[in-house]
Amino acid sequence: MKEVRYFYVPDAANQVELPIEEATHALRVLRLKGGDEIFLMDGEGSFYRAEVTAASSKRCLYEIKENMPQKRAWKGHIHLAIAPTKMMERIEWMAEKATEIGFDELSFLNCQFSERKVVKTPRIDKIVISAVKQSHKAWKPVVKELESFKEFIQTPRPGRKFICHCYEEVEKKDFFTEINSCSMDSDASQDSSASQESGADDITVLVGPEGDFSIDEVRLAVENGYESVSLGTSRLRTETAGLVAVHMAHIARRI
Amino acid sequence: MKEVRYFYVPDAANQVELPIEEATHALRVLRLKGGDEIFLMDGEGSFYRAEVTAASSKRCLYEIKENMPQKRAWKGHIHLAIAPTKMMERIEWMAEKATEIGFDELSFLNCQFSERKVVKTPRIDKIVISAVKQSHKAWKPVVKELESFKEFIQTPRPGRKFICHCYEEVEKKDFFTEINSCSMDSDASQDSSASQESGADDITVLVGPEGDFSIDEVRLAVENGYESVSLGTSRLRTETAGLVAVHMAHIARRI
Repeated sequence: MKEVRYFYVPDAANQVELPIEEATHALRVLRLKGGDEIFLMDGEGSFYRAEVTAASSKRCLYEIKENMPQKRAWKGHIHLAIAPTKMMERIEWMAEKATEIGFDELSFLNCQFSERKVVKTPRIDKIVISAVKQSHKAWKPVVKELESFKEFIQTPRPGRKFICHCYEEVEKKDFFTEINSCSMDSDASQDSSASQESGADDITVLVGPEGDFSIDEVRLAVENGYESVSLGTSRLRTETAGLVAVHMAHIARRI
Repeated sequence: MKEVRYFYVPDAANQVELPIEEATHALRVLRLKGGDEIFLMDGEGSFYRAEVTAASSKRCLYEIKENMPQKRAWKGHIHLAIAPTKMMERIEWMAEKATEIGFDELSFLNCQFSERKVVKTPRIDKIVISAVKQSHKAWKPVVKELESFKEFIQTPRPGRKFICHCYEEVEKKDFFTEINSCSMDSDASQDSSASQESGADDITVLVGPEGDFSIDEVRLAVENGYESVSLGTSRLRTETAGLVAVHMAHIARRI
């Protein structure tokens, strides 16, 4: 039995050829030939069954045979905005694992106590694409460039917005309890497509750097409509907190 | 302000000296001297405030000043039994992250489709200890040696037992829904110490190797009282499935 081969091809329906990296893999590793069946993922909700029509040493042309639109596995838009860790590999595994579990957008924040001010987002994007393929996700999470904390929180966003932090002096609710109760309400309305449109199920959650957000940043976020929350009693590293937040959001929003 | 220094000292109350590795760190890296305050974690529920009484080049003696028994952050015993992955570093990060989140026991299973038949558990135990210290956990998860799948499932265990797998032909319930509803019942009884004693809140969950359990293994587990479950619709790598299972159990049992 042949294994099903998935290739990531943005805008696959309007293309006729695999992107260069995917073509290299198809031709050199899998040794595909004309007539072979392949599956394309456009990262925006569709898989396509296609056939290789021509394969040279470097190029792989295809013809789409079937459009297979996929069902969403969770409601709303799950957006994690996190301060990158000093050791980049820690954020890299988090990006891989969060993609496997299922989320929509990854932003990087430049915070007051950030030790890292540069992020190679193309490298993170590659890791995300690889996890999308490996875990057969129909939607590819969007990876954003690093931006300033202030700019990020001042950008309007639909749905509920949360900032996770460890300050005792700022009142905190429990993140999972908050998003879970909200989700049950929208279950009751039985109209998930309407809430998908309105953004009512959307979750934006902020996770700070190794030294946490500054208390001024927390207060500024609260002033900008972010709810102050805790991820629980466990003391978590930045990247673990990011993954825990994504997983909680995924559980609360899964369909 | 001096940072609080935590040292892992099994049976700390009955010892008077830091174990050799901890002593090396205390003396060479932190350069502690007689009179310095340190904190000991015994990995079994207690922290101790102690004072360094004598420090030579290799040995560090202490005297306990205060016993600080810690409260448990979750109910019951959370036990993950997992088939080790081909690449050991994947299980290593899972052990670190699961410890940060909070669980009690990690077992390794030798399964029919296991690609790895050897696990260096002392190395995993070191990673777990380091995560216990870093995340200030009062209880150290126990790390067990690799054992055969059959032996493991035939050992009697209190509480509920689950096997996660991907077979369509074996009926599966949703793991999180199952453990969450059970937890709500025991919340209602308001008697968590009794359920802690009885093991009613205990969760044992099995995660298979890259190629999944064999269907015979799944059936054998079910015959031995394991409930057949799914972790959701996402296709997860072995180590991600292990972490997701631990995190779900932690959420369902947190106090």
